[in-house]
Parts: sequence; C-alpha cells; structure tokens
Amino acid sequence: MDKEDGVNNHGDEVQDIENNGLLDGKEEIGMHWSEFSDRNISHTQPLLAKRTNITSQIAIVGANLCPIESLDYEIFENELFKQDWRSRKKVQIVQYVILKWGFALLIGLGTGVVGFFNSVAVENIAGSKLLMTASLMTKNKYYEAFLLYAGLNMGLAAAAAALCAFIAPAAAGSGIPEVKAYLNGVDAHSILAPSTLFVKIFGSILGVSAGFVVGKEGPMVHTGACIASLLGQGGSRKYGLTWKGFRYFKNDRDRRDMITCGAAAGVASAFRAPVGGVLFALEEAASWWRSALLWRTFFTTAVVAIVLRASIQFCSTGKCGLFGKGGLIMYDVSAYKVSYSGADLVAVLILGIIGGILGSLYNYLVDKVVRTYSIINEKGAAFKILLVIAISLLTSCCYYFLPWVAPCTPCPTNITTSCPSVDESGEYKRFQCPPGYYNALASLFLNTNDDAIRILLASGGFHVFSLFIFFVAVFFIGIITYGIAIPSGLFIPVILAGAAYGRLVGRIFDPVMTLDTGFFALLGAASFLGGTMRMTVSLGVILLELTNDLLLLPLVMLTLLVSKTVADSFNKGVYDQILHIKGLPYLEAHAEPYMRNLVALDVVTGPLITFSGIEKVGNIIHVLESTGHNGFPVIDEPPFSDTPELCGIVLRSHLLVLLKGKNFSRERVPAGQSIFKKISAFDFAKAGLGKGIKLDDLDIEEEEMDMYVDLHPITNASPYTVVETMSLAKAAILFRQLGLRHMCVVPKSQGRPPVVGILTRHDFMPEHVLGLYPHMKSHKWD
Amino acid sequence: MDKEDGVNNHGDEVQDIENNGLLDGKEEIGMHWSEFSDRNISHTQPLLAKRTNITSQIAIVGANLCPIESLDYEIFENELFKQDWRSRKKVQIVQYVILKWGFALLIGLGTGVVGFFNSVAVENIAGSKLLMTASLMTKNKYYEAFLLYAGLNMGLAAAAAALCAFIAPAAAGSGIPEVKAYLNGVDAHSILAPSTLFVKIFGSILGVSAGFVVGKEGPMVHTGACIASLLGQGGSRKYGLTWKGFRYFKNDRDRRDMITCGAAAGVASAFRAPVGGVLFALEEAASWWRSALLWRTFFTTAVVAIVLRASIQFCSTGKCGLFGKGGLIMYDVSAYKVSYSGADLVAVLILGIIGGILGSLYNYLVDKVVRTYSIINEKGAAFKILLVIAISLLTSCCYYFLPWVAPCTPCPTNITTSCPSVDESGEYKRFQCPPGYYNALASLFLNTNDDAIRILLASGGFHVFSLFIFFVAVFFIGIITYGIAIPSGLFIPVILAGAAYGRLVGRIFDPVMTLDTGFFALLGAASFLGGTMRMTVSLGVILLELTNDLLLLPLVMLTLLVSKTVADSFNKGVYDQILHIKGLPYLEAHAEPYMRNLVALDVVTGPLITFSGIEKVGNIIHVLESTGHNGFPVIDEPPFSDTPELCGIVLRSHLLVLLKGKNFSRERVPAGQSIFKKISAFDFAKAGLGKGIKLDDLDIEEEEMDMYVDLHPITNASPYTVVETMSLAKAAILFRQLGLRHMCVVPKSQGRPPVVGILTRHDFMPEHVLGLYPHMKSHKWD
Repeated sequence: MDKEDGVNNHGDEVQDIENNGLLDGKEEIGMHWSEFSDRNISHTQPLLAKRTNITSQIAIVGANLCPIESLDYEIFENELFKQDWRSRKKVQIVQYVILKWGFALLIGLGTGVVGFFNSVAVENIAGSKLLMTASLMTKNKYYEAFLLYAGLNMGLAAAAAALCAFIAPAAAGSGIPEVKAYLNGVDAHSILAPSTLFVKIFGSILGVSAGFVVGKEGPMVHTGACIASLLGQGGSRKYGLTWKGFRYFKNDRDRRDMITCGAAAGVASAFRAPVGGVLFALEEAASWWRSALLWRTFFTTAVVAIVLRASIQFCSTGKCGLFGKGGLIMYDVSAYKVSYSGADLVAVLILGIIGGILGSLYNYLVDKVVRTYSIINEKGAAFKILLVIAISLLTSCCYYFLPWVAPCTPCPTNITTSCPSVDESGEYKRFQCPPGYYNALASLFLNTNDDAIRILLASGGFHVFSLFIFFVAVFFIGIITYGIAIPSGLFIPVILAGAAYGRLVGRIFDPVMTLDTGFFALLGAASFLGGTMRMTVSLGVILLELTNDLLLLPLVMLTLLVSKTVADSFNKGVYDQILHIKGLPYLEAHAEPYMRNLVALDVVTGPLITFSGIEKVGNIIHVLESTGHNGFPVIDEPPFSDTPELCGIVLRSHLLVLLKGKNFSRERVPAGQSIFKKISAFDFAKAGLGKGIKLDDLDIEEEEMDMYVDLHPITNASPYTVVETMSLAKAAILFRQLGLRHMCVVPKSQGRPPVVGILTRHDFMPEHVLGLYPHMKSHKWD
Repeated sequence: MDKEDGVNNHGDEVQDIENNGLLDGKEEIGMHWSEFSDRNISHTQPLLAKRTNITSQIAIVGANLCPIESLDYEIFENELFKQDWRSRKKVQIVQYVILKWGFALLIGLGTGVVGFFNSVAVENIAGSKLLMTASLMTKNKYYEAFLLYAGLNMGLAAAAAALCAFIAPAAAGSGIPEVKAYLNGVDAHSILAPSTLFVKIFGSILGVSAGFVVGKEGPMVHTGACIASLLGQGGSRKYGLTWKGFRYFKNDRDRRDMITCGAAAGVASAFRAPVGGVLFALEEAASWWRSALLWRTFFTTAVVAIVLRASIQFCSTGKCGLFGKGGLIMYDVSAYKVSYSGADLVAVLILGIIGGILGSLYNYLVDKVVRTYSIINEKGAAFKILLVIAISLLTSCCYYFLPWVAPCTPCPTNITTSCPSVDESGEYKRFQCPPGYYNALASLFLNTNDDAIRILLASGGFHVFSLFIFFVAVFFIGIITYGIAIPSGLFIPVILAGAAYGRLVGRIFDPVMTLDTGFFALLGAASFLGGTMRMTVSLGVILLELTNDLLLLPLVMLTLLVSKTVADSFNKGVYDQILHIKGLPYLEAHAEPYMRNLVALDVVTGPLITFSGIEKVGNIIHVLESTGHNGFPVIDEPPFSDTPELCGIVLRSHLLVLLKGKNFSRERVPAGQSIFKKISAFDFAKAGLGKGIKLDDLDIEEEEMDMYVDLHPITNASPYTVVETMSLAKAAILFRQLGLRHMCVVPKSQGRPPVVGILTRHDFMPEHVLGLYPHMKSHKWD
C-alpha cells in the first residue's frame, strides 16, 4: 500500500516494525533525523519518535523538518477525465496552447527582470561599499576602513540571515537541489512558496552584496522555479482569483513543465546563457524530459536573453548607477592565443586531473560543513543569524588583511585605464600602496566576485605567491560559507577558486607553454566545475556563452570530461550530496545492482486496503482516517462482476472531493451517467500542496455513513501495472521513467486477488529495500 | 501476438483478413505499396499480394522494398542473463566501461577523419572543375567552357548514381530519416550496412562535386551512424574476428547508444559544431535518451572537433591542394552590426513568417517530387542513373546560363582581394565581363554551395534582381534534386535558398533598417531551416557555432521559433514526411487522440500462441514454422503449478539457439542448474539483422521431435505488462518510452488465462488501429 504521507502514517505500523532493522545501517544523517524528530515533531507525531524509517515521508527543507509528498505525473484517466476531455472544444485547445506559451513568456519576462534587478542592486550596494572603503584607505584611515568594510558586510549579512531565518527558512542554500527534487517528483510546499521567492530574491542580493563567497546563480534557478510555480497555481480559488481555463494546468505534469522552464530561465538569466540554460535544465535539473519541452524551454530562455539585452541597452546610458559592464557577467577572452601543442595538452590533462581531485575534495568538505552547520542551525533562528555573522566577520578579516602580505607593484606604463583604478571594479587597486603603485592581491579580494573572476581570466600578470594565497583563501572560505542560512549559489565560489587554481597552474607551466595564463584560468574554472557539479555539456555551453569564443570549446570540453571522470571515482556531485543530506527521496535514473536480485513482490509490504466499486461511505471515511495512504485499488465483486475484477485506482484527494459532494445513494447501485452533471472535473483538479480538501473539512452525518457511493467515475481504469515476478530493478526504472506515484502489482497466476500490492516511491528507496534485505548491501557490485 | 516479421507471416492470416477494411482509408502511398508488392514480392510472398496492411513489416529502403524488424531495447532478464550478470567480475565491468568509451573515441575519430576527407575531396574536385571552366571562359571559349562544365558534372553525377544504384540503393537520399527510424526501433539490415557506408562516403563526394544543390551534412550523419553500427557489430563470428568482451555490446541497447553517438558525430563533423551535434542527436535523431548518453555523445563530438582542428592545422601549410578555409564551413560574420530597433524586429518577424510559409511549401513540393521519383526509381538501375543525369544537365544549364542575365559590375576599388578573383572560391567572378568588371551572379552560381553561402552571408552588395533569380533557381533546383539516387543532404539546399531569400528581404527592407543585409541572410537561412526541419535548439546552436557570434543568438532563436510555428500549422517536418513516404513504422512521442477512446484489448488480434514451461520440441518447431511471431508467452500449467501461471516471455531467436544446442530430455522434467554449464549467454547475444540462426539451420531428428526442452532458463520473467483496460494512448506512450518490442496484456479479473494478448509496434500504428476502427478517424480532435 501507499505510505507516502508523513502526516497520517498510523497505518504503517506493520511496516515500521519490519523496518527497525534498518537503523543498524543508518549513518550520521539517520541519527540527525531521529534527533530532529525527538525534538521538533514528537509532540504532534508520536509515531515518528519510534525511530522509524521516515526517509520518504519527511525531509529537511531549510533546516526544518517538513512532511513531503510525491508528485504524480500520470495522466489520471478516469471516466470524469474522459468526459471532460471529450467535451473539450477546439476553442479550449487553442486556449490551452495560448496559455501554455503565455506562461512561458511570463516566466521568461519575470526571471529576466528579476535577474537584471538582482545584478543592478548587487553592483550598486557592493560597489558603494567598496568605493567608501577605498576612499577611506586613500586617506590612510586603514582602521576606520576596516570597521566600515566589516560593519557593512555584517549588517548586510545579518539582514539576509534574518530574512531567511524568520520568513522563509527554505530559501537558504543554493536551491538547485530542491528544484531537482521537485522535478524528480518530491513536493514540499515551502520549497516553491511565494515567501521563499521573496526571500530568495532579496536574501540573495543582500548576501552577495555582503561580500560572501557566494553566487547568485543557484538562487536565480530557484527564483525562476518559484516564479513558474506561482504562475502554475492557476490563481487562487480562495480569493476568487481564478479562471476555468486554468484548470488544465492544475496538475503535476503541466506544473512540472513550467518549473523546468523556470529553472532554465534562471540559469539563462544568471549567466546570460540561453542555450546553457536549456542544457542545464535538461542535464541537471529535470528527471523527465519531452522533446516538446525543449522547444518551450528554449523560448523561455530566448525571452530572458532579449529582456537582458534590452536592460543593458537601457543601462548603457548610465541610468543604473554603478551597474557597468560588470553587472551581467560576460568575460572578454579575445586576447587568448588558442593554438596549442602537445605539451599544452599534457598541461591541460594534469590541470583537469588535479582539478577533479580538488573538486571532489570540495564536495567532501562541503558535505562535512553542511552536516555540522545543520546541528547549529536547528537550534533556532538566533543561532542561524549568529553563524552568518561569524562567517561574515571571518570573511571580512581574510579579505581585508590578506592583501597586506602582497608587495606593491609599480603601475604598468602601457595601459589605457588609470592606475591606481578609480572605479569600484578596477584591476589596479591602490590599497596600502604609495601613488604609482598598486596591490595586485587587493584587486582580487576587494572586488565583487564577478569582477575578481573577470580579472583572473584577463591576460595580466600575478605573482605565484599572491595567486596561491587567493586560491587557498577562496577555496576554504567558499566551503565554510555554504550551509549558512542565506541564499548562496555554488557556481561563483567554484569558478572563483577554479580560476585562481588555473591561473596558478598556468603561471607554473608558463615557461613551457604557448597557451595564455588567462585561458588556463578559464580551464581551471572548468575543471573545478566539472569536479564539483559533474555536468558536462551544459557547463561547456555556459562557459562558451560567458566567453563567446568557440575556439576555446574543445579544450574546455576536454577539461570538463577529465575532471568529471576523476571526481566521479571519489564521490557524488555536490547537488546529489546535498539532496542526500536533506533526506529528499530522490529516485536515481539507474537501479541499484542488488535490485536485480529482487522482484516487485519482495518489497510490497503491509495489508492491501482496497475499495469495492460501490462502497459504503463509512468504510471510506474509516480507511481515510486510519491510514495515510494516497491511492487505493478499486475491485468490483459479485454481483457486479462474475469474479473479483480490477477496476483501477482511486486517489485520496479525489475521494475527499467526491465525499464532499455527497452524491450518495441508499442502495448499492451504480450512479449512472447522471453523476457527470453533478460533479465537475474542475473540482477534482489537483490543488497546490496543502490546499486541497482535508478530512476534517468533511461534514458527513451519521445516517450518511451507511449510504453508498459509486467510485467508478473517479477510478482510473488505466493504472500502470507490473507482474509480481518483475525484477525490482526494471520496476524502479519504469517507475521513474513514467514519473509515477503508484504502481499496481498484479499476480502471475489465477485464483488470487487481481492486485496483490501497490508500489510507491518509498518502496524503491535504497534505505527501505536494504532495511528489508540487509544482507543485500554487501553485494560485490556495490 | 507479435506479427513483426515480414518474411514469415503466414500466421497473420487472421489479422490480415480483419485488416482488409483498412485499404479504404489508404492514400496514394498505400497504393504504391500494393503496386510494389504485386511487382516485386508476390512470387515469394503470396500473402502480401492480398492487399494487406504491411505497414510494420516492410518499408522502402533506397527505393527497394525491404523487410524490417523491430528492435528491442528491453533488458531481457531471463535466468541465463542473471547467471551471467552475477558471474561478472570487476575486471569485466572495467572492460565494458573501457570498451564503451573506446568505441566512442573510435566513432569520433572515424567520423572526424571521414568528414575531413570528404571536405578535402570535394574542394579539390569541384575546385579544379571550376578553375578549368573559368580559365576557358577567360579565353572567351564560352561554348567549350559549358561543355566542359556540364560534361564534368554529368560524369561525376553518373558515377555517384551508379554507385548508389548498383552497390547500395539504401545510400540514396539524406539518411537522416533512416537513422531516425533506427533510433526509434526500426531495423532494416541495409540501412547501416558496410556497403551503405562505402557508397555514402564516395557517393556524397561525387554528388557534391558534381555541382548538385545537395549537401554533405545529412550523408555525414548517416556515415557517422554506419561507422558506429559497424563497430557495434562486435566483430564477425564468421571470420573468427570477435572477442568475448564484445558480447556485452551485442544487444540493441548498446548499439542504439553507439549509433546515437555516431549521428551526433556526423553533425559535429559536417558543421564543425560539437554542441550542435549533441543537440541534434537529442532533438531530432534520438527517440530515447538517457542523461548518461549526453556525456558520451559530448565526448564523441569533442573528439571530432579535435580531429578537425588538427586536420585544418595540417592543411594550413598548403598540403591539401585547393582545400582552403572554405573546406570546413565556418562563416565570418564579424562585420555585422547587431544593435537593433523595433522596426528591425518587425522586419525579422515578417521574415520569419514568410520563411515558415516557404519552408512548408518546400516540404510540400519535396514530398510530391519524391513520390514521383520513386515511381521512376523503381523501374530499375538504368532509370535511376538517367534521372540523375537529367537533373545534372538541368542544373548545369541553369547554373551556366542564368548568370548571363546579370549586368557586369565594376570592381570595387577599396578591396584587398584581387578583382576579378583568381582562385576558385572568390567573390568576384569575371565570367563574361571585360577586365575590371565582375559578374555578381556568377560568383553565386559558379561556386561550391558552401562558398555561395559564405558570399551571401558576407557584407557585400547584390542587386535585388540577381538575388531574386538566384533564390528562385536554388529553391526549385533544390526541390527537384532531392529524391534522385545519390546521397543528398537537405541542410545546404535549405540554407542556400534561405540565405538568398534573407538577403533579398534584407535588400528590400534596407532603407528602414539598421541591421546588416548579411545578417538578414543568416536569419533567412534560419527561417528556412526552421520551416523545413522544425528543429529549434539544435539549429540555433549549429548556426551559432557556424558564425561564432553569440550576440546573434536571440534574433536567430526568434526567427527559428516563428518559422517553425508557422510551418507546423501547414504540414510535418521534412524528415517526418520522408519517413512516412518510406513507410517506416515510426512511433510518435505522443499518442493519437482517438487512442484515448480505445483500450489495450481493443487492438489485440489473432489467436494467442503460448508455450508451456517445459515444451515438446515438435510443438516449438511447428509454431516457429507456421508463424512469423517473435515473442511467445510461457505459461506454467499443472502439475508444475496449481493454476496456469505466467512465467514470462521467450524470443524466437533464443528458441532457435536453444534448439540448436539440443539440450532435450525424454521426460517432462525441469532441466535444473546443470543446464547453465551447457549453454552460454554469449550464444544468445543478439546477432546483427539477418545474421542469427535460421529455422533452416536446425537439424532436428524425428525422434527428437517428441522430446522436451525446458524453456525456463531463457524465459524473461520480467515482461512489461498492461492491464486489458489500459487506455491505448497510455499503452502507446509506455511502449515508446521504454523502447519495447513486446508488451503483455494481462486480464483484469480472475479465472482467465494469465496473458490475454501481446502488443507490438504494429498494433500502435495508426494504419492498423484505424483499420480496425475506421469510424475513429473522423474524431474532431484530429
């Protein structure tokens, strides 16, 4: 039976007891959960305290435990749907298509505008801060300059943390793992709630402006997804702000498609990379993909690109304050020499291998740090804010004091820009140096992250020692920053550390190479990205779109492939790790090897609860009260059929709507066609999580409990089935490929009930399967 | 039951008779088939003459009818497989991974080298031809020049046609529809045979050199797929050139993955567009896609890019004859102004809309022309060659005589190249003009197609009249060229006509626009590509990679989207049309609307033939002789089980191997574990089409016919099933998403056999379904 709902899982006791063996195999995070559940949930959820396997019922969303549900991408073909489908006129189909593309347009516009606003705000806030600090330093007021710098950073950081801690804890972190989980079929209301959107936008601006080693790219992906989700709610019935035309979007399939577009738009908006955005959505974010979606996603990112272009044209007249060409990152690499020899290829291979190792080390350390921080974060909002402030102070200290160790360099004479620089993003920061000199390290540290990357990728000179200090600093500060309670993207820290690393390697190999050191910085960034995020095509294209030079592509691709391959032999990608830490029940695209040794029936647990085609109201109420299950097989029995016969499957939410409508009869007879006049497909459309009718909303009187209700009109007669001898591996892949929530297990022989069990997401989770069959774990294939 | 095999379909009589109603609804192409079958096949295939529905059993491959089979992408989990799988050691897994990537490397290397060789050959042959013609014209020998030009063209054309007609008819045409069909699960041996590869390479070189309006892009995709297929055969058992390690690749899944890589490598090699290649494979070629494949495809195209780069470096020293920068197309658009206003956007929209209309007109005319040509082509090899020669003559005449209508233009004074041009690819052809003058139209006509496109995209001046003549000429010559018996890509004709069209529109809008007319030529090419091929992302990226300027992307994307949308309202994409003409049973990604009104059981036909778990040898031989079915359910019956019980499904090919091994017993008893010592998974690996054991190869003696053979070890106990009430639409999508060959239909109630039918590709074909339910066709949703 289905056991997906974390709120009402009294019915899972049988299985809970069976699962107790699981805890032996549980790792650190498993114990976290138990602590969490003891502390936060036990007063309302007595069963959770029993150290049960709660993998698929609950996850950490923004450092809080949160009940989660599975999404259902199946087309639920019941009679009601078919009636509605047949009654659709041409005009409604046109309406649907227009709305579909209209939504894509709106997602593109919204995400593009937010991305632009974000950049303008960050450039202005961070730019003013840096200018003020620099002006104090020019007056030799070094102490005051530090206080101002650190104070402003801390203020901005505290504001970001407060937003996160008090308004939307789910907005903390990158957001890409959450979007990935949603698109895999895991729903938790707060992941894509409006409050999350609000905090994600403003928290990200404050956090990046505060000088943290964080990016706005991950948050932009999350923002795009939130905007799409908001549009996909189809208005609000509560406030009457809805329209019947929206009902075709009130299902998980259409919402998923829109959120995929939103994620692509986020990347497109953050990197100004429309093709990269589409590929990111395809390669990393989405678990299901249709060819038609490629087109719609592409349209969305094209809209984003046009919005950004128009905005930049608008700003080119100086109306956007300090927002300059640095605002929407686009790196100028036109100075690179891209002809290369065999020696260069060897150097690139070495760079890729070491980059892969460092990337997987990055993942390893981020994992440890996030686990440690989650202990602090769960202690409450104040602790979250204190942690943010502490990291902010540490960052400020490093960034302000480390440049002092670098020597002052005489200004080059053959340059066109002024030295020392006078604007906030200049390459030649005077810092503590006398006039006519500049501090190369300060130009990296006392700049926005975007500008620091731009300087690293440019063809200038840096001392090996300076580069080493910068690399070590941003590598470790980046690691300890992820996991604090602010929206924090991982792309920029990784690119920054990677570019510093690449530039360092480039400087070391300089004597034997023909390639530019600036190009090596780009390859270093690629190697780190490949080593941490483990994407290939999308990163290659994003880097291509950032640099706008196709000739670089082959070497960038080679570096990405090498570093990903090396890193894959150590651990998983950083987003997969975070998914795991958060306990989001992510279904992998491949089945675990031991699943080949099991069949579907092996993991079916619990007594199967079924309904008759025409069922007593009281029975339904009782079942809904006593279990948290979400799908129930409907079996017709004599006298309505000769032998027990599978009608299909009904959903809890549909049962609740049907009961609310009170279309009951005193006799056990079919409802007939007249029922379709009384119920409407609109009422059965899937509401957003937490918004549908609840059991308590029903008002069934005592005498109605003995009446009957015909379930046939709402029974999906096309349930997906597997035969009981189906290998679990194949069943798992089938389940994920189709994006199901329930899958019926049918018997292989006659004389048994037509359904012998139901499989859900939970049943495919390695924790569950290995809990039932602990000896499987030691299989050599693991 | 399965009815996929066109060779032995005596068993399909029941269904054939049922299908007779189908012919009423058949269109022109249906009658073609009947003619074909009357003529070519009736002497061996009496049943086919009965005007039966042969959609899924036979298709036109290279103008010949050819029996086709379905591929099976299911992991066939029988006991033998599991034994083999469990026995695999770590070293074998590593071996598999190394081989997998090694094959990808080889595909990339092979396709890259062929692509380069192809370019060098074309540039040298066509270049010499053009130089000789031009030198005769300089001496005012216009008549001799025409004879030479037309004669050389005709000779090259005849050679290409002869290769195609006599060696590999399947090599004619683009090849992309065939690759698309293969990746959808349709197998015909000749599609990817070594002879096809040979003719595709040399026929394409000869055809392009002959001055036809054809490209080498489609043939390169086919070539890449052929190279991949050749590698995927896993050596030849016949010549002992095989190795046990290859056996893991002897299945349709791994072959499909390799051929997807090959298709991507083909595009990458033709356009020097590695990312475009990956996206092409994803968007257009492949029907199934896994995230892991993205990575491998990307690696393959990266290898291609590196090979091409190295080759160009090699040629830059002048070792490749006339092969210059024109060899591997890459257009220089650096002169474009890409700032645009509202008026420009309106012009681009108009361009896109008209481009879409013209693109769909292109498809419509190509469709008519191909249908007409196929009547000529089927008359025999001589007719094929004559048709090619006729088209060649027509093309030569147009190309040689049309430039005479253009006026002579005085040479510009501010240019760095010589005027009139002295090399073969120059922009300023002297043609009939006096010294100091050049003929603008001749520079378009008397050049290779690649160079003509380059000149159109460059920022120079053309007379509106000249552009109009060129546009009309290439538009119609391109249409009448496709379908003749030479390898002929569609990309270049479409780009050429589109660029001329765009340039023409650009000239007309010139007074009110800020955009460059050269840029308009690019947008025109995009609008034609979108209008004919209906791809978006991949074409956008290919154009991006061809022009290497990211700033153009938003407008290119807009044009592609507009033209695709407009064209989609008229007809299908050109490759889908060709698939349809060839009768390849392509499964669409979406189900037809009327399928929602049917359930799985509605399309199940014929008596179901099943085997017992331990079956008499004679029964098996009899069934295999009397039907062409490919999969048979295995049912255990008492005394081996209490009630009839579904064991799984066996394949014809596996049965043949088992029978050949003669592991029979006199008693009806299970074979036990000892059987796994006698049979090996290697023997059951899927051979290439037409290579496996045939029924005639068996040598069963009379007394063995009464013995028993245990089918359990080769029975797939994990067949995919649908319940009989499953909506046909959902079943069709499931079938395609999983890439199945057989799907079992299970009953919804007790007391009936555990399997009530088998669904195959054939059962989902609209021709079959509408044949059973003709009234469905008129549904308003159509």
